[in-house]
Amino acid sequence: MNNVITVERKVLEKNDAIAMRLRQTWSSQNIFAANFVSSPGSGKTSLLEATIPRLKNILPMAVIEGDVQTDLDARRIHALDVPVVQIVTNGACHLEAQLVDDAFMRLHEKNIRLLMIENVGNLVCPSSYDLGENMKIVIVSVTEGDDKPLKYPAMFVKASVLIINKIDLLPYVQSDLTTLRGNALSVNPSLRVFEMSCTTGKGVDEWCAWLCSQVKD
Amino acid sequence: MNNVITVERKVLEKNDAIAMRLRQTWSSQNIFAANFVSSPGSGKTSLLEATIPRLKNILPMAVIEGDVQTDLDARRIHALDVPVVQIVTNGACHLEAQLVDDAFMRLHEKNIRLLMIENVGNLVCPSSYDLGENMKIVIVSVTEGDDKPLKYPAMFVKASVLIINKIDLLPYVQSDLTTLRGNALSVNPSLRVFEMSCTTGKGVDEWCAWLCSQVKD
Repeated sequence: MNNVITVERKVLEKNDAIAMRLRQTWSSQNIFAANFVSSPGSGKTSLLEATIPRLKNILPMAVIEGDVQTDLDARRIHALDVPVVQIVTNGACHLEAQLVDDAFMRLHEKNIRLLMIENVGNLVCPSSYDLGENMKIVIVSVTEGDDKPLKYPAMFVKASVLIINKIDLLPYVQSDLTTLRGNALSVNPSLRVFEMSCTTGKGVDEWCAWLCSQVKD
Repeated sequence: MNNVITVERKVLEKNDAIAMRLRQTWSSQNIFAANFVSSPGSGKTSLLEATIPRLKNILPMAVIEGDVQTDLDARRIHALDVPVVQIVTNGACHLEAQLVDDAFMRLHEKNIRLLMIENVGNLVCPSSYDLGENMKIVIVSVTEGDDKPLKYPAMFVKASVLIINKIDLLPYVQSDLTTLRGNALSVNPSLRVFEMSCTTGKGVDEWCAWLCSQVKD
């Protein structure tokens, strides 16, 4: 398997070089980039749909959507009247920096302050790929089980923020927020944690205020 | 990227050769093998926990658990008093046939009729890896969004069975079973679909009867 490991290392090195260039570009343009990661169905797109209307008149923004197939997510974002580019990976399980670079080139509106990148739904592979973002934001929903940070630790180690989503479902599922939060913090004690329901809107204002504060004046 | 593609093809070819050997072994021993795949938190382990007590006195069985980290799932299965071996992939996003072969060698109880393999929680990567199973069984929960079969089609194409789980949560989420089922069947019209709640037990008996019928006399 040595060949595989060598090739994989080269792929990651090439990815990291492109990511570093993207990070420099965005920094020089005063753009804050966030890479949203989670399992399929945890609510990445719903989080963007909750965030965009609250911030789009304050922060010029754009979205890059990553999916294995379909442009369903880009259509949902386009309906909110912000610039969006869809990446279809055609089977690949994560976004890479080159794809994000290509997508950014296709964004007509470059005068933005906030770039939100929605990764492919996958709690494992995207953790290895730097996209040039300022931070990874990992989302888990309370329906997924409180043990997820322990079973998929890499993503929680790499993330700066954890959003615990779908808290409106807490009365109906076997989940304990203290346990879930504790498991996440045991893996990464510096995680900033937000509890939220994109369906009811609970917690969304606090998250948006914090995200806004991260974008430099 | 040609080097990567070539190496990946060799890895898959090697995997498929081991899988074919496993399939022949299990067939000769009259063992039916099922490979359970889903996103993290869709309920693979809960499905096994619902299935095992109903069938363990009828069908001698064993379980192979796959996780990126921890033996939490193997402990849950061990509590049900069936033979179980845990594979920890240490970061890898899917099971491979060699790992399953190694795990099967470590099973002390070989006189079984049903082998249930719980894959790593990942709706993308495990679709590419044959483990020698008779069939893949994909699980989605109604909390994940009805568009999942369209956005992650490969897994639904490769699966023979779709289990729609957590139907007890239908009153509280925006999900329509007809849409979800229709999306899945549009990707793979031959999918056998079961609707289920491992929490309330609804639909579990029907699934268990069907699974039992698949294991040859």
